[in-house]
Amino acid sequence: MKEVTVFAPATVANVACGFDILGFALEQPGDTVTARFGEGNEVRIRSITGDGGRLPLDADKNTAGVAIRHLLNHLGEKRGVEITLEKALPLGSGLGSSAASAVAGVVAANTLLGEPLTREELIPFTLEAERAACGAAHADNAAPAMLGGFVLIRGYDPLDLVRIPAPGELCCAVIHPHIEIRTEDARKILRKEIRLEDAIVQWGNIGGLIAGLMKGDYGLIGRSMKDVIIEPVRSLLIPGFEEVKQAALESGALGCSISGSGPSVFALGNDRSQIEAAGRAMQSVFSGMHIESDLYISAINNQGPSAVHSGSSI
Amino acid sequence: MKEVTVFAPATVANVACGFDILGFALEQPGDTVTARFGEGNEVRIRSITGDGGRLPLDADKNTAGVAIRHLLNHLGEKRGVEITLEKALPLGSGLGSSAASAVAGVVAANTLLGEPLTREELIPFTLEAERAACGAAHADNAAPAMLGGFVLIRGYDPLDLVRIPAPGELCCAVIHPHIEIRTEDARKILRKEIRLEDAIVQWGNIGGLIAGLMKGDYGLIGRSMKDVIIEPVRSLLIPGFEEVKQAALESGALGCSISGSGPSVFALGNDRSQIEAAGRAMQSVFSGMHIESDLYISAINNQGPSAVHSGSSI
Repeated sequence: MKEVTVFAPATVANVACGFDILGFALEQPGDTVTARFGEGNEVRIRSITGDGGRLPLDADKNTAGVAIRHLLNHLGEKRGVEITLEKALPLGSGLGSSAASAVAGVVAANTLLGEPLTREELIPFTLEAERAACGAAHADNAAPAMLGGFVLIRGYDPLDLVRIPAPGELCCAVIHPHIEIRTEDARKILRKEIRLEDAIVQWGNIGGLIAGLMKGDYGLIGRSMKDVIIEPVRSLLIPGFEEVKQAALESGALGCSISGSGPSVFALGNDRSQIEAAGRAMQSVFSGMHIESDLYISAINNQGPSAVHSGSSI
Repeated sequence: MKEVTVFAPATVANVACGFDILGFALEQPGDTVTARFGEGNEVRIRSITGDGGRLPLDADKNTAGVAIRHLLNHLGEKRGVEITLEKALPLGSGLGSSAASAVAGVVAANTLLGEPLTREELIPFTLEAERAACGAAHADNAAPAMLGGFVLIRGYDPLDLVRIPAPGELCCAVIHPHIEIRTEDARKILRKEIRLEDAIVQWGNIGGLIAGLMKGDYGLIGRSMKDVIIEPVRSLLIPGFEEVKQAALESGALGCSISGSGPSVFALGNDRSQIEAAGRAMQSVFSGMHIESDLYISAINNQGPSAVHSGSSI
């Protein structure tokens, strides 16, 4: 029976100054979906592993299932698709867990169907899945998970994505402390109005970050990774955030901020050993506060999802 | 007697979405300063032409004079400098008139002194002149007038400038309607608080504009030239602004917005004949309202100031 297995990566949204408009993909960790044709015209989830039993098997309540359902409807496909989902991405970590599942699912299904659509064309289905999962169709995780590298969301109406490949030496440390922040709360805590003078500082930094990435100017990337609007508020939800950030910067990271809506914290660097040191330094701050954490050290994923296995078996 | 003549260009600040952080230089119009050594250690203005008699000859009240004074103080220079200033740039037009004079003056004086400083190093003196002229040391005119091309002001503390050369076909129409807007009023009319959701739209556009300029992607440049924060407020001070903008876009301009704090309006294009048509269309809207205007059609100036004449005479 034909089956397709696809890995889709974790993503870091916001990237300090780019709230809601910027994200990038990691090499690891990520989620893996195996898809094959199923009975009837249904989307079925046969199994989910790695989630500690927290996710339901109901395809309508899973971003991979929802994204595939939208794809099949769009194509007028009469065949059903059956998947297994291996989650290596922690839930609620701020690393784009729901987006990674949606992207892995829809890319696997599209491959199974003979690739009728391009990866760009698959993005709207993942946004429908994000909307079903968290109430808003934000693209800052799904788009980089699908396209790899950095992705700027220039605008939503219509969706206008700008892919910016990461410069070669850029690497990332992500620390996921085992505390819970609900995306909803992380959004509620934000003020609806901000000071114009802060917005001006922020857009200087966004311009600088985009220019730095495109020029491969690591100094400029670091100087631009400053968020004067969201981080000062959201960091209140992460115990020890300032010390964690300080530790990363003192270890030579270019910049450090909250990944998505947290609680994960990421640091970017242009030297693998420095970024490993930054990761360990961040972890030891959390340890000192008796907070367990997972540390991921990863290059930037410039390819997006990858086929893990694609073949025929009985 | 040795003398140096330098032309410095008009500049368009803000560039739609980049309020206070972005500007670019035009080929024409601009101001011209001729400098020679003078008596004592003073800075003297011998004559100003092209200003309709509006500018005083007091060097402390002229941005060229102030910038040169700061340069001489910085260098501990004991010789005096005497200048003549030819203003081709209209005052209060929103085209960086004060910055062009300051840049032409300080570059001419620096050349006269044997170029002890680089152009980047001269920028702080022009900012002091801007501060003396309008109370704030904004760099979004002075920096592009000095460096040419587009200049992003990543941050002010310390001054962090990112030069972005304009893609080759980019050209500009600027229309200066003969109405008066005081920079002070144009600033006062702005709200001090803005909605976060508008700021997010704005920073998507800033990122898109920077990426578009660096990629030479004219479509992306055009889609990104949208200002949802400043233009909707400031355009109220420019009669017929919406019609002017519409006329430019219908003529094939990539985008159109207010130059600096106005009243000039600029349009960018990637086709010289289209941008000429856009310029004429904008002008005819103002004409229809019985508002006289000057139209400038120009390539983007990627070089900054230029020596007009440098030699010796009796």
